Amino acid sequence: MVRIKLIVEYDGTNYHGFQRQLNAHTVQAEIEQCLEKLTGEKITIVGAGRTDAGVHALGQVVAFDSGAAVPANKYHLALNSFLPPDIRVLTSEAVRPDFNPRFDAVQKQYRYLIYHKKAGAVLFRNYAYCYSGELNLKAMQEACTFIKGKHDFKAFCTSGSSAKTSIRTVKYCRLGEEDPFIKLEIAADGFLYNMVRIIAGNLMEIGKGRMKPDYLKDIIDSRDRSLGGPTAPPQGLYLAAVEYGD
Amino acid sequence: MVRIKLIVEYDGTNYHGFQRQLNAHTVQAEIEQCLEKLTGEKITIVGAGRTDAGVHALGQVVAFDSGAAVPANKYHLALNSFLPPDIRVLTSEAVRPDFNPRFDAVQKQYRYLIYHKKAGAVLFRNYAYCYSGELNLKAMQEACTFIKGKHDFKAFCTSGSSAKTSIRTVKYCRLGEEDPFIKLEIAADGFLYNMVRIIAGNLMEIGKGRMKPDYLKDIIDSRDRSLGGPTAPPQGLYLAAVEYGD
Repeated sequence: MVRIKLIVEYDGTNYHGFQRQLNAHTVQAEIEQCLEKLTGEKITIVGAGRTDAGVHALGQVVAFDSGAAVPANKYHLALNSFLPPDIRVLTSEAVRPDFNPRFDAVQKQYRYLIYHKKAGAVLFRNYAYCYSGELNLKAMQEACTFIKGKHDFKAFCTSGSSAKTSIRTVKYCRLGEEDPFIKLEIAADGFLYNMVRIIAGNLMEIGKGRMKPDYLKDIIDSRDRSLGGPTAPPQGLYLAAVEYGD
Repeated sequence: MVRIKLIVEYDGTNYHGFQRQLNAHTVQAEIEQCLEKLTGEKITIVGAGRTDAGVHALGQVVAFDSGAAVPANKYHLALNSFLPPDIRVLTSEAVRPDFNPRFDAVQKQYRYLIYHKKAGAVLFRNYAYCYSGELNLKAMQEACTFIKGKHDFKAFCTSGSSAKTSIRTVKYCRLGEEDPFIKLEIAADGFLYNMVRIIAGNLMEIGKGRMKPDYLKDIIDSRDRSLGGPTAPPQGLYLAAVEYGD
Protein backbone atom coordinates (compact mmCIF):
# COMPACT_ATOMS: atom_id res chain seq x y z
CA MET A 1 0.00 0.00 0.00
CA VAL A 2 1.18 3.49 -0.82
CA ARG A 3 -0.29 6.72 0.51
CA ILE A 4 -0.95 9.13 -2.34
CA LYS A 5 -1.43 12.90 -2.04
CA LEU A 6 -3.39 14.74 -4.73
CA ILE A 7 -3.87 18.45 -5.30
CA VAL A 8 -7.35 18.90 -6.71
CA GLU A 9 -9.25 21.83 -8.19
CA TYR A 10 -12.99 21.86 -8.72
CA ASP A 11 -15.91 23.98 -9.71
CA GLY A 12 -18.28 23.46 -6.79
CA THR A 13 -21.37 24.77 -8.62
CA ASN A 14 -22.91 21.38 -9.30
CA TYR A 15 -21.90 19.61 -6.06
CA HIS A 16 -23.39 19.37 -2.60
CA GLY A 17 -19.98 20.19 -1.22
CA PHE A 18 -16.85 18.10 -0.84
CA GLN A 19 -17.83 15.54 1.76
CA ARG A 20 -19.61 12.33 0.89
CA GLN A 21 -23.30 12.20 1.90
CA LEU A 22 -26.09 9.76 1.27
CA ASN A 23 -27.99 10.52 -1.95
CA ALA A 24 -26.05 13.66 -2.79
CA HIS A 25 -23.63 14.47 -5.56
CA THR A 26 -20.35 15.34 -3.84
CA VAL A 27 -16.76 15.85 -4.90
CA GLN A 28 -15.50 13.13 -2.54
CA ALA A 29 -17.93 10.52 -3.90
CA GLU A 30 -17.01 11.45 -7.47
CA ILE A 31 -13.28 11.06 -6.84
CA GLU A 32 -13.80 7.79 -4.94
CA GLN A 33 -15.88 6.34 -7.78
CA CYS A 34 -13.17 7.23 -10.28
CA LEU A 35 -10.47 5.74 -8.03
CA GLU A 36 -12.46 2.52 -7.90
CA LYS A 37 -12.70 2.44 -11.71
CA LEU A 38 -8.98 3.07 -11.95
CA THR A 39 -7.71 0.69 -9.25
CA GLY A 40 -10.50 -1.83 -8.74
CA GLU A 41 -10.28 -1.02 -5.01
CA LYS A 42 -12.89 0.53 -2.70
CA ILE A 43 -10.99 3.62 -1.60
CA THR A 44 -11.91 6.26 0.97
CA ILE A 45 -10.20 9.61 0.53
CA VAL A 46 -9.51 12.21 3.19
CA GLY A 47 -9.64 15.91 2.29
CA ALA A 48 -7.89 18.88 3.90
CA GLY A 49 -11.08 20.89 4.17
CA ARG A 50 -14.79 20.32 3.77
CA THR A 51 -16.03 22.86 1.28
CA ASP A 52 -19.77 23.55 1.27
CA ALA A 53 -22.18 23.33 -1.66
CA GLY A 54 -21.24 25.87 -4.32
CA VAL A 55 -17.78 26.57 -2.87
CA HIS A 56 -14.82 26.08 -5.23
CA ALA A 57 -11.30 24.77 -4.74
CA LEU A 58 -8.07 25.63 -6.48
CA GLY A 59 -5.86 23.64 -4.14
CA GLN A 60 -7.84 21.07 -2.17
CA VAL A 61 -5.52 18.35 -0.87
CA VAL A 62 -6.69 14.75 -0.58
CA ALA A 63 -4.95 11.53 0.40
CA PHE A 64 -5.71 7.83 0.16
CA ASP A 65 -4.01 4.43 0.26
CA SER A 66 -3.83 2.11 -2.69
CA GLY A 67 -2.06 -1.09 -3.63
CA ALA A 68 -2.69 -0.59 -7.36
CA ALA A 69 0.14 -0.70 -9.88
CA VAL A 70 -0.39 2.94 -10.87
CA PRO A 71 2.83 4.98 -10.46
CA ALA A 72 2.31 7.57 -7.71
CA ASN A 73 3.19 10.49 -9.99
CA LYS A 74 0.76 9.34 -12.72
CA TYR A 75 -2.46 9.23 -10.69
CA HIS A 76 -3.43 12.74 -11.77
CA LEU A 77 -3.25 11.84 -15.46
CA ALA A 78 -5.10 8.56 -14.99
CA LEU A 79 -7.79 10.08 -12.77
CA ASN A 80 -8.41 13.04 -15.08
CA SER A 81 -9.43 10.64 -17.83
CA PHE A 82 -12.23 9.33 -15.55
CA LEU A 83 -13.25 12.50 -13.72
CA PRO A 84 -15.95 14.89 -14.98
CA PRO A 85 -14.66 18.19 -16.43
CA ASP A 86 -15.51 20.16 -13.27
CA ILE A 87 -12.97 18.24 -11.17
CA ARG A 88 -9.29 18.17 -12.16
CA VAL A 89 -6.33 16.65 -10.35
CA LEU A 90 -3.30 18.92 -10.74
CA THR A 91 -0.57 16.77 -9.17
CA SER A 92 -0.07 13.41 -7.49
CA GLU A 93 2.79 12.06 -5.39
CA ALA A 94 3.65 9.39 -2.84
CA VAL A 95 3.79 10.63 0.76
CA ARG A 96 4.71 9.14 4.14
CA PRO A 97 2.14 6.53 5.30
CA ASP A 98 0.85 8.65 8.18
CA PHE A 99 0.30 11.84 6.18
CA ASN A 100 -3.11 13.36 7.02
CA PRO A 101 -4.24 16.21 4.76
CA ARG A 102 -6.48 17.68 7.44
CA PHE A 103 -4.52 17.36 10.67
CA ASP A 104 -1.06 17.93 9.18
CA ALA A 105 -2.04 21.21 7.53
CA VAL A 106 -0.16 24.14 9.06
CA GLN A 107 -1.85 26.83 6.98
CA LYS A 108 -4.87 27.19 4.74
CA GLN A 109 -5.51 29.99 2.27
CA TYR A 110 -8.96 31.02 1.19
CA ARG A 111 -10.07 33.59 -1.36
CA TYR A 112 -13.38 35.39 -1.50
CA LEU A 113 -14.28 37.04 -4.78
CA ILE A 114 -16.67 39.96 -5.28
CA TYR A 115 -17.66 40.86 -8.85
CA HIS A 116 -18.05 44.61 -8.61
CA LYS A 117 -19.64 45.62 -11.89
CA LYS A 118 -23.14 45.40 -13.30
CA ALA A 119 -22.28 44.41 -16.88
CA GLY A 120 -21.00 40.88 -17.29
CA ALA A 121 -22.24 39.69 -13.89
CA VAL A 122 -24.25 36.95 -15.60
CA LEU A 123 -20.98 35.14 -16.32
CA PHE A 124 -19.79 35.23 -12.72
CA ARG A 125 -23.04 34.47 -10.88
CA ASN A 126 -21.65 31.06 -9.84
CA TYR A 127 -18.07 32.25 -9.25
CA ALA A 128 -18.35 35.45 -7.20
CA TYR A 129 -20.61 37.53 -5.01
CA CYS A 130 -22.00 39.91 -7.66
CA TYR A 131 -22.54 43.37 -6.21
CA SER A 132 -22.51 46.49 -8.34
CA GLY A 133 -23.40 49.10 -5.70
CA GLU A 134 -20.89 51.44 -4.10
CA LEU A 135 -18.35 49.92 -1.71
CA ASN A 136 -15.99 51.83 0.56
CA LEU A 137 -12.82 49.87 -0.07
CA LYS A 138 -10.73 51.81 2.43
CA ALA A 139 -13.18 51.02 5.23
CA MET A 140 -13.13 47.33 4.26
CA GLN A 141 -9.34 47.33 4.23
CA GLU A 142 -9.22 49.02 7.63
CA ALA A 143 -11.53 46.34 9.02
CA CYS A 144 -9.23 43.62 7.62
CA THR A 145 -6.48 44.79 9.98
CA PHE A 146 -8.62 43.75 12.99
CA ILE A 147 -8.94 40.21 11.61
CA LYS A 148 -5.20 39.66 11.39
CA GLY A 149 -3.51 37.97 14.36
CA LYS A 150 -4.54 35.53 17.08
CA HIS A 151 -8.17 35.92 18.16
CA ASP A 152 -11.09 33.96 19.47
CA PHE A 153 -13.25 33.88 16.35
CA LYS A 154 -16.37 32.44 18.01
CA ALA A 155 -18.43 35.33 16.58
CA PHE A 156 -17.34 34.20 13.09
CA CYS A 157 -18.52 30.63 13.32
CA THR A 158 -21.86 29.10 12.42
CA SER A 159 -23.16 27.28 15.50
CA GLY A 160 -23.01 23.51 15.44
CA SER A 161 -19.30 23.47 14.69
CA SER A 162 -17.42 20.62 16.33
CA ALA A 163 -14.16 22.55 16.76
CA LYS A 164 -12.65 22.22 20.26
CA THR A 165 -11.43 25.80 20.35
CA SER A 166 -12.43 28.87 18.39
CA ILE A 167 -9.03 30.52 18.71
CA ARG A 168 -7.27 30.87 15.37
CA THR A 169 -4.24 32.79 14.13
CA VAL A 170 -4.81 34.71 10.92
CA LYS A 171 -1.53 35.27 9.11
CA TYR A 172 -2.91 37.76 6.64
CA CYS A 173 -6.29 39.19 5.68
CA ARG A 174 -6.04 41.53 2.74
CA LEU A 175 -8.51 43.00 0.34
CA GLY A 176 -7.64 44.53 -3.00
CA GLU A 177 -9.27 45.69 -6.20
CA GLU A 178 -8.48 43.77 -9.38
CA ASP A 179 -11.01 45.34 -11.69
CA PRO A 180 -13.74 44.05 -12.18
CA PHE A 181 -13.16 42.05 -8.97
CA ILE A 182 -12.56 42.80 -5.33
CA LYS A 183 -10.49 39.97 -3.93
CA LEU A 184 -10.24 39.03 -0.25
CA GLU A 185 -7.30 36.77 0.60
CA ILE A 186 -6.99 35.23 4.00
CA ALA A 187 -4.58 32.67 5.47
CA ALA A 188 -4.69 31.09 8.90
CA ASP A 189 -3.58 28.03 10.84
CA GLY A 190 -7.17 26.86 10.58
CA PHE A 191 -10.70 28.11 9.98
CA LEU A 192 -13.98 27.67 11.81
CA TYR A 193 -17.13 26.59 10.00
CA ASN A 194 -18.22 29.40 7.63
CA MET A 195 -15.53 31.70 9.07
CA VAL A 196 -14.40 33.21 5.75
CA ARG A 197 -17.97 33.69 4.52
CA ILE A 198 -18.92 35.42 7.78
CA ILE A 199 -15.83 37.66 7.57
CA ALA A 200 -16.72 38.46 3.95
CA GLY A 201 -20.34 39.16 4.95
CA ASN A 202 -19.20 41.58 7.65
CA LEU A 203 -16.74 43.29 5.31
CA MET A 204 -19.56 43.80 2.81
CA GLU A 205 -21.69 45.48 5.52
CA ILE A 206 -18.75 47.77 6.23
CA GLY A 207 -18.21 48.43 2.52
CA LYS A 208 -21.86 49.36 2.12
CA GLY A 209 -21.54 51.82 5.01
CA ARG A 210 -23.94 49.96 7.28
CA MET A 211 -21.24 49.27 9.86
CA LYS A 212 -18.11 51.15 10.97
CA PRO A 213 -14.79 49.34 10.43
CA ASP A 214 -13.87 49.27 14.13
CA TYR A 215 -17.21 47.70 15.03
CA LEU A 216 -15.52 44.53 13.78
CA LYS A 217 -13.33 44.64 16.89
CA ASP A 218 -16.47 44.70 19.04
CA ILE A 219 -17.86 41.72 17.15
CA ILE A 220 -14.66 39.74 17.75
CA ASP A 221 -14.68 40.68 21.46
CA SER A 222 -18.36 39.74 21.81
CA ARG A 223 -17.75 36.10 20.73
CA ASP A 224 -21.39 36.33 19.60
CA ARG A 225 -22.44 35.26 16.10
CA SER A 226 -25.75 37.12 16.41
CA LEU A 227 -23.89 40.43 16.06
CA GLY A 228 -22.65 41.68 12.73
CA GLY A 229 -23.54 40.92 9.14
CA PRO A 230 -24.90 37.93 7.28
CA THR A 231 -22.87 35.00 5.93
CA ALA A 232 -21.74 35.85 2.40
CA PRO A 233 -22.95 33.45 -0.33
CA PRO A 234 -20.91 30.30 -1.07
CA GLN A 235 -20.15 30.90 -4.75
CA GLY A 236 -17.57 33.62 -3.98
CA LEU A 237 -15.46 31.30 -1.83
CA TYR A 238 -12.37 29.37 -2.99
CA LEU A 239 -10.13 27.03 -1.00
CA ALA A 240 -6.96 28.38 -2.60
CA ALA A 241 -4.14 26.33 -1.02
CA VAL A 242 -3.16 24.16 1.92
CA GLU A 243 0.36 24.18 3.31
CA TYR A 244 2.22 21.47 5.19
CA GLY A 245 5.29 21.72 7.38
CA ASP A 246 7.31 19.08 5.48
CA MET B 1 -47.53 49.47 -30.38
CA VAL B 2 -44.06 50.57 -29.40
CA ARG B 3 -40.80 49.08 -30.65
CA ILE B 4 -38.51 48.27 -27.74
CA LYS B 5 -34.75 47.75 -27.92
CA LEU B 6 -33.03 45.66 -25.25
CA ILE B 7 -29.35 45.09 -24.55
CA VAL B 8 -29.02 41.55 -23.24
CA GLU B 9 -26.18 39.55 -21.73
CA TYR B 10 -26.23 35.80 -21.34
CA ASP B 11 -24.20 32.80 -20.37
CA GLY B 12 -24.64 30.54 -23.41
CA THR B 13 -23.45 27.37 -21.64
CA ASN B 14 -26.89 25.87 -21.14
CA TYR B 15 -28.53 27.02 -24.39
CA HIS B 16 -28.66 25.65 -27.91
CA GLY B 17 -27.73 29.10 -29.13
CA PHE B 18 -29.74 32.27 -29.49
CA GLN B 19 -32.21 31.44 -32.21
CA ARG B 20 -35.52 29.68 -31.52
CA GLN B 21 -35.64 26.04 -32.66
CA LEU B 22 -38.15 23.26 -32.24
CA ASN B 23 -37.56 21.23 -29.06
CA ALA B 24 -34.41 23.09 -28.03
CA HIS B 25 -33.69 25.41 -25.14
CA THR B 26 -32.69 28.73 -26.72
CA VAL B 27 -32.15 32.28 -25.51
CA GLN B 28 -34.75 33.65 -27.91
CA ALA B 29 -37.45 31.23 -26.75
CA GLU B 30 -36.66 32.00 -23.10
CA ILE B 31 -36.96 35.77 -23.62
CA GLU B 32 -40.15 35.37 -25.66
CA GLN B 33 -41.75 33.21 -22.96
CA CYS B 34 -40.91 35.82 -20.33
CA LEU B 35 -42.26 38.61 -22.52
CA GLU B 36 -45.51 36.69 -22.85
CA LYS B 37 -45.74 36.32 -19.06
CA LEU B 38 -45.07 40.02 -18.66
CA THR B 39 -47.30 41.44 -21.40
CA GLY B 40 -49.86 38.70 -22.11
CA GLU B 41 -48.91 39.05 -25.79
CA LYS B 42 -47.33 36.50 -28.15
CA ILE B 43 -44.15 38.37 -29.05
CA THR B 44 -41.43 37.50 -31.55
CA ILE B 45 -38.08 39.12 -30.91
CA VAL B 46 -35.36 39.87 -33.47
CA GLY B 47 -31.71 39.65 -32.43
CA ALA B 48 -28.65 41.38 -33.86
CA GLY B 49 -26.69 38.17 -34.19
CA ARG B 50 -27.33 34.46 -33.94
CA THR B 51 -24.91 33.08 -31.40
CA ASP B 52 -24.29 29.33 -31.50
CA ALA B 53 -24.65 26.82 -28.67
CA GLY B 54 -22.18 27.63 -25.88
CA VAL B 55 -21.38 31.13 -27.18
CA HIS B 56 -21.91 34.01 -24.74
CA ALA B 57 -23.15 37.57 -25.16
CA LEU B 58 -22.29 40.72 -23.27
CA GLY B 59 -24.16 43.05 -25.59
CA GLN B 60 -26.68 41.19 -27.72
CA VAL B 61 -29.32 43.60 -29.04
CA VAL B 62 -32.91 42.50 -29.50
CA ALA B 63 -36.07 44.33 -30.53
CA PHE B 64 -39.80 43.63 -30.46
CA ASP B 65 -43.15 45.39 -30.63
CA SER B 66 -45.58 45.53 -27.76
CA GLY B 67 -48.79 47.29 -26.87
CA ALA B 68 -48.44 46.54 -23.15
CA ALA B 69 -48.60 49.28 -20.53
CA VAL B 70 -45.00 48.65 -19.42
CA PRO B 71 -42.91 51.85 -19.65
CA ALA B 72 -40.22 51.37 -22.32
CA ASN B 73 -37.39 52.12 -19.90
CA LYS B 74 -38.67 49.61 -17.32
CA TYR B 75 -38.75 46.48 -19.46
CA HIS B 76 -35.31 45.40 -18.28
CA LEU B 77 -36.34 45.48 -14.62
CA ALA B 78 -39.63 43.70 -15.28
CA LEU B 79 -38.07 41.06 -17.53
CA ASN B 80 -35.20 40.29 -15.14
CA SER B 81 -37.72 39.22 -12.51
CA PHE B 82 -39.00 36.54 -14.94
CA LEU B 83 -35.77 35.52 -16.69
CA PRO B 84 -33.46 32.73 -15.45
CA PRO B 85 -30.20 33.91 -13.83
CA ASP B 86 -28.13 33.14 -16.95
CA ILE B 87 -29.94 35.79 -19.02
CA ARG B 88 -29.99 39.44 -17.89
CA VAL B 89 -31.39 42.49 -19.65
CA LEU B 90 -29.09 45.46 -19.08
CA THR B 91 -31.13 48.28 -20.63
CA SER B 92 -34.41 48.89 -22.42
CA GLU B 93 -35.64 51.85 -24.45
CA ALA B 94 -38.21 52.85 -27.07
CA VAL B 95 -36.83 53.09 -30.61
CA ARG B 96 -38.18 54.16 -34.00
CA PRO B 97 -40.79 51.69 -35.35
CA ASP B 98 -38.56 50.46 -38.20
CA PHE B 99 -35.45 49.78 -36.10
CA ASN B 100 -33.98 46.37 -37.01
CA PRO B 101 -31.21 45.10 -34.69
CA ARG B 102 -29.69 42.94 -37.40
CA PHE B 103 -29.86 45.03 -40.56
CA ASP B 104 -29.30 48.42 -38.93
CA ALA B 105 -26.09 47.30 -37.20
CA VAL B 106 -23.08 49.19 -38.53
CA GLN B 107 -20.49 47.37 -36.43
CA LYS B 108 -20.26 44.27 -34.28
CA GLN B 109 -17.58 43.49 -31.75
CA TYR B 110 -16.63 39.99 -30.75
CA ARG B 111 -14.19 38.76 -28.15
CA TYR B 112 -12.44 35.40 -28.06
CA LEU B 113 -10.92 34.37 -24.75
CA ILE B 114 -8.06 31.91 -24.24
CA TYR B 115 -7.31 30.78 -20.67
CA HIS B 116 -3.56 30.34 -20.80
CA LYS B 117 -2.71 28.61 -17.54
CA LYS B 118 -3.04 25.07 -16.26
CA ALA B 119 -4.15 25.82 -12.70
CA GLY B 120 -7.68 27.16 -12.39
CA ALA B 121 -8.75 26.04 -15.86
CA VAL B 122 -11.60 24.03 -14.32
CA LEU B 123 -13.38 27.30 -13.55
CA PHE B 124 -13.13 28.62 -17.11
CA ARG B 125 -13.87 25.46 -19.09
CA ASN B 126 -17.22 26.93 -20.21
CA TYR B 127 -15.95 30.50 -20.63
CA ALA B 128 -12.68 30.24 -22.55
CA TYR B 129 -10.54 28.02 -24.74
CA CYS B 130 -8.29 26.50 -22.06
CA TYR B 131 -4.79 25.94 -23.40
CA SER B 132 -1.75 25.85 -21.16
CA GLY B 133 0.94 25.02 -23.75
CA GLU B 134 3.37 27.55 -25.16
CA LEU B 135 2.00 30.19 -27.50
CA ASN B 136 4.01 32.60 -29.62
CA LEU B 137 2.08 35.78 -28.95
CA LYS B 138 4.14 37.93 -31.30
CA ALA B 139 3.43 35.59 -34.20
CA MET B 140 -0.29 35.66 -33.38
CA GLN B 141 -0.23 39.45 -33.20
CA GLU B 142 1.58 39.65 -36.54
CA ALA B 143 -1.09 37.44 -38.10
CA CYS B 144 -3.82 39.74 -36.73
CA THR B 145 -2.51 42.55 -38.96
CA PHE B 146 -3.47 40.53 -42.05
CA ILE B 147 -7.07 40.21 -40.83
CA LYS B 148 -7.57 43.95 -40.48
CA GLY B 149 -9.11 45.77 -43.47
CA LYS B 150 -11.47 44.89 -46.31
CA HIS B 151 -11.10 41.29 -47.51
CA ASP B 152 -13.04 38.46 -48.99
CA PHE B 153 -13.29 36.18 -45.94
CA LYS B 154 -14.70 33.14 -47.77
CA ALA B 155 -11.90 31.00 -46.30
CA PHE B 156 -13.15 31.98 -42.82
CA CYS B 157 -16.72 30.89 -43.23
CA THR B 158 -18.34 27.54 -42.51
CA SER B 159 -20.06 26.38 -45.69
CA GLY B 160 -23.83 26.58 -45.77
CA SER B 161 -23.85 30.27 -44.90
CA SER B 162 -26.62 32.25 -46.56
CA ALA B 163 -24.61 35.49 -46.81
CA LYS B 164 -24.77 37.11 -50.27
CA THR B 165 -21.17 38.27 -50.18
CA SER B 166 -18.19 37.16 -48.14
CA ILE B 167 -16.48 40.56 -48.29
CA ARG B 168 -16.24 42.19 -44.88
CA THR B 169 -14.30 45.13 -43.45
CA VAL B 170 -12.52 44.41 -40.20
CA LYS B 171 -11.97 47.61 -38.26
CA TYR B 172 -9.61 46.10 -35.73
CA CYS B 173 -8.26 42.68 -34.85
CA ARG B 174 -6.03 42.78 -31.82
CA LEU B 175 -4.69 40.22 -29.45
CA GLY B 176 -3.27 40.95 -26.03
CA GLU B 177 -2.27 39.21 -22.85
CA GLU B 178 -4.29 39.89 -19.72
CA ASP B 179 -2.85 37.26 -17.43
CA PRO B 180 -4.19 34.53 -17.10
CA PHE B 181 -6.06 35.26 -20.35
CA ILE B 182 -5.17 35.99 -23.93
CA LYS B 183 -7.91 38.15 -25.37
CA LEU B 184 -8.73 38.53 -29.05
CA GLU B 185 -10.89 41.53 -29.89
CA ILE B 186 -12.30 41.99 -33.35
CA ALA B 187 -14.75 44.49 -34.82
CA ALA B 188 -16.22 44.53 -38.31
CA ASP B 189 -19.18 45.77 -40.31
CA GLY B 190 -20.40 42.19 -40.23
CA PHE B 191 -19.24 38.62 -39.72
CA LEU B 192 -19.67 35.41 -41.68
CA TYR B 193 -20.86 32.22 -40.02
CA ASN B 194 -18.16 30.99 -37.58
CA MET B 195 -15.76 33.69 -38.84
CA VAL B 196 -14.37 34.67 -35.43
CA ARG B 197 -14.00 31.06 -34.30
CA ILE B 198 -12.16 30.19 -37.53
CA ILE B 199 -9.88 33.22 -37.13
CA ALA B 200 -9.23 32.19 -33.52
CA GLY B 201 -8.53 28.61 -34.61
CA ASN B 202 -6.00 29.80 -37.18
CA LEU B 203 -4.35 32.16 -34.70
CA MET B 204 -3.97 29.23 -32.28
CA GLU B 205 -2.22 27.18 -35.00
CA ILE B 206 0.13 30.10 -35.53
CA GLY B 207 0.66 30.50 -31.79
CA LYS B 208 1.52 26.81 -31.47
CA GLY B 209 4.09 27.20 -34.28
CA ARG B 210 2.27 24.91 -36.69
CA MET B 211 1.71 27.72 -39.20
CA LYS B 212 3.68 30.85 -40.12
CA PRO B 213 1.92 34.18 -39.53
CA ASP B 214 1.99 35.22 -43.20
CA TYR B 215 0.40 31.95 -44.26
CA LEU B 216 -2.78 33.64 -43.07
CA LYS B 217 -2.52 35.95 -46.10
CA ASP B 218 -2.43 32.88 -48.36
CA ILE B 219 -5.49 31.47 -46.63
CA ILE B 220 -7.40 34.72 -47.18
CA ASP B 221 -6.33 34.82 -50.84
CA SER B 222 -7.32 31.17 -51.38
CA ARG B 223 -10.97 31.80 -50.40
CA ASP B 224 -10.83 28.12 -49.40
CA ARG B 225 -12.06 26.97 -45.98
CA SER B 226 -10.24 23.65 -46.34
CA LEU B 227 -6.93 25.42 -45.81
CA GLY B 228 -5.78 26.54 -42.38
CA GLY B 229 -6.70 25.54 -38.85
CA PRO B 230 -9.77 24.16 -37.15
CA THR B 231 -12.70 26.18 -35.85
CA ALA B 232 -11.97 27.18 -32.24
CA PRO B 233 -14.49 25.91 -29.65
CA PRO B 234 -17.64 27.98 -28.95
CA GLN B 235 -17.16 28.62 -25.23
CA GLY B 236 -14.37 31.16 -25.81
CA LEU B 237 -16.58 33.40 -27.96
CA TYR B 238 -18.48 36.48 -26.76
CA LEU B 239 -20.71 38.82 -28.75
CA ALA B 240 -19.39 41.92 -27.00
CA ALA B 241 -21.32 44.82 -28.55
CA VAL B 242 -23.37 45.95 -31.53
CA GLU B 243 -23.24 49.50 -32.79
CA TYR B 244 -25.84 51.49 -34.71
CA GLY B 245 -25.43 54.58 -36.82
CA ASP B 246 -28.02 56.77 -35.01
